[in-house]
Amino acid sequence: MIEDKNQARTSLSELGEFGLINHLTKNFKMQHKSTIKGVGDDAAVLNIENKQVLVTTDLLIEGVHFDLSYMPLKHLGYKAVIVNLSDIYAMNGTASQITVSIAVSNRFPVEALEELYEGIFLACKTYKIDLVGGDTTSSTKGLLINITAIGEVNKEDVVYRNSAKPNDLLVVSGDLGAAYLGLQVLEREKKVFEVNPNSQPDLSEYSYLIERQLKPEARKDIIKLLKDLEVKPTAMIDISDGLSSEILHICKQSKVGCNLYEEKIPLDPQVISTCEEFDLNSTTIALSGGEEYELLFTISQEDFPKIKGNPHLTVIGHITDESLGANLVTRAGQQIKLTAQGWNALS
Amino acid sequence: MIEDKNQARTSLSELGEFGLINHLTKNFKMQHKSTIKGVGDDAAVLNIENKQVLVTTDLLIEGVHFDLSYMPLKHLGYKAVIVNLSDIYAMNGTASQITVSIAVSNRFPVEALEELYEGIFLACKTYKIDLVGGDTTSSTKGLLINITAIGEVNKEDVVYRNSAKPNDLLVVSGDLGAAYLGLQVLEREKKVFEVNPNSQPDLSEYSYLIERQLKPEARKDIIKLLKDLEVKPTAMIDISDGLSSEILHICKQSKVGCNLYEEKIPLDPQVISTCEEFDLNSTTIALSGGEEYELLFTISQEDFPKIKGNPHLTVIGHITDESLGANLVTRAGQQIKLTAQGWNALS
Repeated sequence: MIEDKNQARTSLSELGEFGLINHLTKNFKMQHKSTIKGVGDDAAVLNIENKQVLVTTDLLIEGVHFDLSYMPLKHLGYKAVIVNLSDIYAMNGTASQITVSIAVSNRFPVEALEELYEGIFLACKTYKIDLVGGDTTSSTKGLLINITAIGEVNKEDVVYRNSAKPNDLLVVSGDLGAAYLGLQVLEREKKVFEVNPNSQPDLSEYSYLIERQLKPEARKDIIKLLKDLEVKPTAMIDISDGLSSEILHICKQSKVGCNLYEEKIPLDPQVISTCEEFDLNSTTIALSGGEEYELLFTISQEDFPKIKGNPHLTVIGHITDESLGANLVTRAGQQIKLTAQGWNALS
Repeated sequence: MIEDKNQARTSLSELGEFGLINHLTKNFKMQHKSTIKGVGDDAAVLNIENKQVLVTTDLLIEGVHFDLSYMPLKHLGYKAVIVNLSDIYAMNGTASQITVSIAVSNRFPVEALEELYEGIFLACKTYKIDLVGGDTTSSTKGLLINITAIGEVNKEDVVYRNSAKPNDLLVVSGDLGAAYLGLQVLEREKKVFEVNPNSQPDLSEYSYLIERQLKPEARKDIIKLLKDLEVKPTAMIDISDGLSSEILHICKQSKVGCNLYEEKIPLDPQVISTCEEFDLNSTTIALSGGEEYELLFTISQEDFPKIKGNPHLTVIGHITDESLGANLVTRAGQQIKLTAQGWNALS
């Protein structure tokens, strides 16, 4: 956080835990009829009738998952919600509620948490999500956010990772590599700023990359699109750790192999030009860059006509027998074994 | 953590995030028929039929909520689960699943996390809970655990905090003040140990207090007991921040007052003798000591015969009109306004 010493500052201990939760959530209106009781009791009460319940959780830690020197708190709040919703959509479900646990050191005034919650609420509004609970406490160092998302799905609609079949097509939404490059651009500008705090960077040519890093979206629209097209994926996962890592999850859990075609991987022009500028291989970036929150899924070949030509979806390969392994087929026609080089939060 | 340099140490980065989760959860068997899919996909899938879903979450941070110099990791894992289950029982529900998010600095070897998970699994086994998801990552400092618990409850059985009525009786399970005193004893022994690492403390006369601090239980048995007795509380909350703070929550949310009788507050003999030793007022300790995880509830007067004489339950007061406020009636018959002096995680 680039601190502005002139900002109004209210210390967290002035409000206390209950005061803080009340203060932050008082204007938030519930939107889901399934939310019977949100914040304010020992537990939230939800009424999810005739559907299966989906639960996912994700932990973001300052200095590990984000850097407040270029991640504005409002964006961080937004992104922390998106990361979780993406997991619900990846089950072919509808996200409906979240709980938010936050720990902050006392260097953060109440106003900083308000900014963070502005982002959380914006994501809730955009994706029609109710904030139904959480925990707010102090930390000995930095900021951390743990969000748990709840969703619902018809029993017959749920899509797992372990059900891809040989000959299925491998499909990805959107394009890849931008979020990772956005981070590289921001890291470079941070270094420039550290050397010369008066520099006024022109980041307009990286606008798409930076937006993908700072304000990613979850592909709720793709879940709706697939429903409208009457396509039920045979397996699905969201791309949080990199295309290559996610493909390997599907292959391992479904006990299949696959061929991924390098020339088919969708790349935005900004990704291509920035890879050239940074002297990076765009295929490597697309394979290993995380935090995309695109959906990767497999469909039966007979569904191909339904998605053919759709600008949001790209067929990037096909599923094969397990014995053939998971391979990248390069532009030169060479087969290379896919390896997960995705981001490892423990390394 | 009192580190044993001779222990086997496997670094976290050797396993990586997916390897670690697999390693820690591989022997865990699902017990609930409502758990359709646990760890291993984007989200857990639960089938909670014809019931309302309960969700609660709690964040525990090293140096704020626990001190590893006297809290063994196995106990910490156990307690982190209990804290959440207690919130589900406080809604008159049945806890069924948890997700566990953990962040650890690299000073913790895999073996330390195994100990932590041993405690988590023991609590799961004891309370019949499925571990269905989570997140494991590195932290820049210390250990933190965020658990979210999922439960279920029949629509007509759920008990909120906001439905106590004048003339209802105020009832508490178990006895109070022991967990707080256990912490005082452990803090004192830590100081002795720092001065003289060879001291061999005899803590047998504090065994109940220490057990209440290090290995608390959630009152699943009380929920069953109340069902068996055909008593549905009119309002309920669990005691995590202190009796006084919880009574005020019920009074504020139910828009009622209450009289709490000092002479009725249940105290264990170890609490009384240790308060004398530490020169503490046992009523103050019972009112303000947190982490009890007992249930505090109100019942209609006509249900009194059903609970009368039950050794697990004590009537400690009654609900009055809001205009009369929330009061402690001392042994001398004096009325004192109740104030929340419970623990504030943000102070």
